Amino acid sequence: MKIERVTGQLSLRRTIESGTEEQRRAVQAIIDDVRTNGDAALKKYTEQFDKAAIDDFLVSKEEIDAAYRDINDELLHVLREAAANIRDYHERQKRESWIMTKEDGTMLGQKVTPLDAVGLYVPGGTAAYPSSVLMNVIPAQVAGVKRIVIVSPPTKQGTLPAGVLVAAHELGVKEIYKVGGAQAIAALAYGTETIQPVDKIFGPGNIYVALAKREVFGQVAIDMIAGPSEIVVLADETAKANEIAADLLSQAEHDERASSILVTPSLKLAHEVANEVQKQLETLPRQAIAAASMEQYGAIYVTDTLEEAIAVVNELAPEHLEVMTAEPLLVLGQIRHAGAIFLGRFSSEPVGDYFAGPNHVLPTNGTARFSSGLSVDEFVKKSSIIFYSEQALKENGRKIAAFARAEGLEAHARAIEARGKE
Amino acid sequence: MKIERVTGQLSLRRTIESGTEEQRRAVQAIIDDVRTNGDAALKKYTEQFDKAAIDDFLVSKEEIDAAYRDINDELLHVLREAAANIRDYHERQKRESWIMTKEDGTMLGQKVTPLDAVGLYVPGGTAAYPSSVLMNVIPAQVAGVKRIVIVSPPTKQGTLPAGVLVAAHELGVKEIYKVGGAQAIAALAYGTETIQPVDKIFGPGNIYVALAKREVFGQVAIDMIAGPSEIVVLADETAKANEIAADLLSQAEHDERASSILVTPSLKLAHEVANEVQKQLETLPRQAIAAASMEQYGAIYVTDTLEEAIAVVNELAPEHLEVMTAEPLLVLGQIRHAGAIFLGRFSSEPVGDYFAGPNHVLPTNGTARFSSGLSVDEFVKKSSIIFYSEQALKENGRKIAAFARAEGLEAHARAIEARGKE
Repeated sequence: MKIERVTGQLSLRRTIESGTEEQRRAVQAIIDDVRTNGDAALKKYTEQFDKAAIDDFLVSKEEIDAAYRDINDELLHVLREAAANIRDYHERQKRESWIMTKEDGTMLGQKVTPLDAVGLYVPGGTAAYPSSVLMNVIPAQVAGVKRIVIVSPPTKQGTLPAGVLVAAHELGVKEIYKVGGAQAIAALAYGTETIQPVDKIFGPGNIYVALAKREVFGQVAIDMIAGPSEIVVLADETAKANEIAADLLSQAEHDERASSILVTPSLKLAHEVANEVQKQLETLPRQAIAAASMEQYGAIYVTDTLEEAIAVVNELAPEHLEVMTAEPLLVLGQIRHAGAIFLGRFSSEPVGDYFAGPNHVLPTNGTARFSSGLSVDEFVKKSSIIFYSEQALKENGRKIAAFARAEGLEAHARAIEARGKE
Repeated sequence: MKIERVTGQLSLRRTIESGTEEQRRAVQAIIDDVRTNGDAALKKYTEQFDKAAIDDFLVSKEEIDAAYRDINDELLHVLREAAANIRDYHERQKRESWIMTKEDGTMLGQKVTPLDAVGLYVPGGTAAYPSSVLMNVIPAQVAGVKRIVIVSPPTKQGTLPAGVLVAAHELGVKEIYKVGGAQAIAALAYGTETIQPVDKIFGPGNIYVALAKREVFGQVAIDMIAGPSEIVVLADETAKANEIAADLLSQAEHDERASSILVTPSLKLAHEVANEVQKQLETLPRQAIAAASMEQYGAIYVTDTLEEAIAVVNELAPEHLEVMTAEPLLVLGQIRHAGAIFLGRFSSEPVGDYFAGPNHVLPTNGTARFSSGLSVDEFVKKSSIIFYSEQALKENGRKIAAFARAEGLEAHARAIEARGKE
């Protein structure tokens, strides 16, 4: 790994992948086709892209039963315990409707209402993670969403991964459809004969899925445009090089474009971690992916002071931040931008991926500057409540009408003045 | 106005305006130009589109002073009182960071941090509303955002409306730039020599502004793609036709594409309101706009029962909903989709536009199904906090590693197992 000494400000804000003109046109054509031809278009694209001939997109009870036979008992138990932890954490995010009242009879407030229906995209292949099902479905359930739909591209054999099906069934999800790609996003946004439209679409996917989500944004809501995973470890000389190296590699094995970065004021630690990464890489099953990721997007930044290291972390605005310093709690208040903050050496990042409770769907590619991980908030909407009494309108009506007239909106003023006239 | 009897389900979910291919290409070219050429591109487009030659985009102290001379005292006082009401309401939306602790030493939580910098787009011409400045800037300030930037297209004389400047100055906004259109959005997203980039962009605009916001989404966050304003009045036979008509017209005067709809089980009220709308239209200054809006997008839907009327309201998912029934509070719990809910005859919609306190930036075009009005939540982000103790990792490490291995992620499992090894 490269070790770079950092002085002054780092600016690593990256441009997001926005697809080629050709990809955008292809996605637009697929969406139009699904809007016009519904299920027939879904079948056509599933044959074309997934090489699977699907008659009924809905996963059957038989398929769920088969999935349970494929899963070992230990995993099932861990999955249930993880689900309980995730539910417990997300329950604390739940917000109630509230009102404030004034003596003149005014009542103002916010009504919190769950979304009616949401869709979750689960990517295919090796990225079809049962943990992602837990992380997306549980906050929706805590919010009170009644209809939860999962879509995922089938294998050539027309199946979905057992882990995904078991996780979905454990949570009580009934609608799981074997369809993926831009066509699945179009179906969720506009509906087909089989798939009723939803109000919001969640979950990551390849560039076609990302472009399709961007395209249907406005018709439905979308969660975020997810990029490759990232970790930044902020560490001082008290940290253990083998633990840092292991954590960096755990991100790197996700994707060749994943990014794993150590920021430290200790040159000694920097060298130790670089050596440990080399050593641990040798025996990793996903060595090729992890090595490519470390080579292209891995880095060790050495600063003069811990304060400078913290400034670098805020520049990077990482998805995952591990703080392995002598006193991690003292650092917490200085972290302005991070999707999730892991404090201390026993809070290895995979603790949060699977089990602890907080969501593992987090803002990537520097978007932690302005966005948050997935939470119950994403599954509700808030309506303002305004009740004005006769007295409140009498006292304030003239002022409101004056403001309206100043903005050139006479009918607004007259609406206020209409009260009491007959 | 047309009166239509409604039986069964109404489906009025509309497709959003997504621009022509030519408009999208034009916006893309402007964004690329601003990214490459910075201020020079801003000047070029401001001359081309706004016919204004601007040397310094930043509004000067002299311009602010001149704006104060243009504003009458009554408006200034109302503006200050409205600002206080808006601040009071939004203070109650503020969320604190929180933690939960477990006996094994685990600490989980959420850290709430304001965004560093946000930009507000204020449209030009007659839609340059001082109230919009209040509604966008105050929640940002309540959230704790340090840098707030306003951009707005100048007139041919190179000026901005006095009301907008005064509202911004009252709130202490220092950075106001005389630049609009897609070029302003590009400057906010990518920065130029004069304008530092922001993290999130707020505010409505024409189709070019909307397309530019969509284009930079991901690089920065954006608030929403706003459409024309809408009101739905839900009323029974106890409501006053003249008040309903006045409220419908107050939306209609905004824009020819604004939509004003009455839903009622009372055929008698329907006829009275239709007559009142005709009568009140005759003397409105913005009669042409309001008449065109009522003609194209106005409607009166008559149902058999109040329950059916409520179902129609939920189908419409209006930006503004007025409930003028005998017992409006009884209806509140049945409203699933509305941006803001105005209860009772004294809660005329303009009360919320200017003065009461809740935000007037609300989801349009049926998007109240899945989104909320502007709130303090839009100006903060939440970072998960995860602290695992040695004991917690010992107890749960094996399970976490098993889950990771089931997902094929060996390095994740080894990261957990690295703890304690040296």
